[in-house]
Amino acid sequence: MSASLFLIPVTLGETEINRSLPPYNREIIVSLRYFIVENERSARRFLKQTAPEIIINDLTFYILNKHTSPEEVSAFLQPVKSGHSIGIISEAGCPAVADPGAEVVSIAQKKNIPVVPLVGPSSILLALMASGFNGQSFAFHGYLPIDDDCRIRTLKTMEQRIYSENQTQLFIETPYRNNKLLESIVKTCKPATRLCIAADITLPSEMIKTKNIGEWKKNLPDLSKRPCIFAIYK
Amino acid sequence: MSASLFLIPVTLGETEINRSLPPYNREIIVSLRYFIVENERSARRFLKQTAPEIIINDLTFYILNKHTSPEEVSAFLQPVKSGHSIGIISEAGCPAVADPGAEVVSIAQKKNIPVVPLVGPSSILLALMASGFNGQSFAFHGYLPIDDDCRIRTLKTMEQRIYSENQTQLFIETPYRNNKLLESIVKTCKPATRLCIAADITLPSEMIKTKNIGEWKKNLPDLSKRPCIFAIYK
Repeated sequence: MSASLFLIPVTLGETEINRSLPPYNREIIVSLRYFIVENERSARRFLKQTAPEIIINDLTFYILNKHTSPEEVSAFLQPVKSGHSIGIISEAGCPAVADPGAEVVSIAQKKNIPVVPLVGPSSILLALMASGFNGQSFAFHGYLPIDDDCRIRTLKTMEQRIYSENQTQLFIETPYRNNKLLESIVKTCKPATRLCIAADITLPSEMIKTKNIGEWKKNLPDLSKRPCIFAIYK
Repeated sequence: MSASLFLIPVTLGETEINRSLPPYNREIIVSLRYFIVENERSARRFLKQTAPEIIINDLTFYILNKHTSPEEVSAFLQPVKSGHSIGIISEAGCPAVADPGAEVVSIAQKKNIPVVPLVGPSSILLALMASGFNGQSFAFHGYLPIDDDCRIRTLKTMEQRIYSENQTQLFIETPYRNNKLLESIVKTCKPATRLCIAADITLPSEMIKTKNIGEWKKNLPDLSKRPCIFAIYK
């Protein structure tokens, strides 16, 4: 196989590797010497957990964040020219979905470097599966606007698409603001619209529950500091 | 743990279990006696491949397809009342994403049955990761309309959303019609719009390539009978 860019998912929070990553990922990981990572400390920890025999000091880490320029990213991909594959490791879940990895992949594609995505946990996809909502048509919107008026407008536009396009709408929030978002949702959406709250996915405290807005209103859960995916559908 | 509905992904085509499924899924599978499946024969084969020690004759299979009524689905979920968990197995990839499993999950959620999604390969998500496109905002549309005029209108609407909403657009086609869809895409979309073609994901023949429409036009690949995900973005 020619030198490639491997997209390496990590677990969602503190859970065993075997819970959510295929054994094949380990085989790829131990074959790599170059990694593009968001945070070197957590990447080292993940690698040690996956393959305790890895000698971390033999590895090269390139740090990727929103300040990394396209020129720097191009330099990160240099090892491929001399036949060395590279791995991208994100902070949680799948690289390049809702994290800075997408820019690296885009540059790799332009340079004709083969890109190989490995299987792992995506909170968006797991929430969608367990919601019972339409999986033939869905949209993920990332973070909603923070400003109250903008957020309400965005929620209304999304709710319209549920009914006009039969499309499930998914979104997220910074965990400490989850309760505030939940209040906006139940105030803004119709009582008959269904809301799925998926919290702590793949963790022992996992809770994925779908009810209509009218039912949720009677008893709002405390979602503060729990990583959550929200989905709405008719 | 209380009796639950487990969503059990399968491999995408003929590839090893270890390539794309975590060991934990096996632990869950061997603990189950009741399965809701689309096709009993392929479900049996998958179970035997995952856990050769399973005694298939001890298991109960409920067949789910688009003709299954909500009443029948409710009956499938009866074992939970006597404390038995149930697994849903789809034909390929993740249950309830682009397959009939979503209706079962919806009924389980109404009945307050805990729903537990297991990690596995989703061709949609893997294509998105490897495309280099926006993973903060994306929409999956399933199959496009077959009628030529409707299909072109849908492609134009999707392309507009790339530019107006900064949203990656993903869609699929029945494999034997892939070449026809590809022709429509390159005829309809702007030369500068980028197209990612993701074929045979997780298989040895995997090919995931992003180019702009202008470049693709010079040399269209033969995608006939290869399972593909298409994604467009600016």
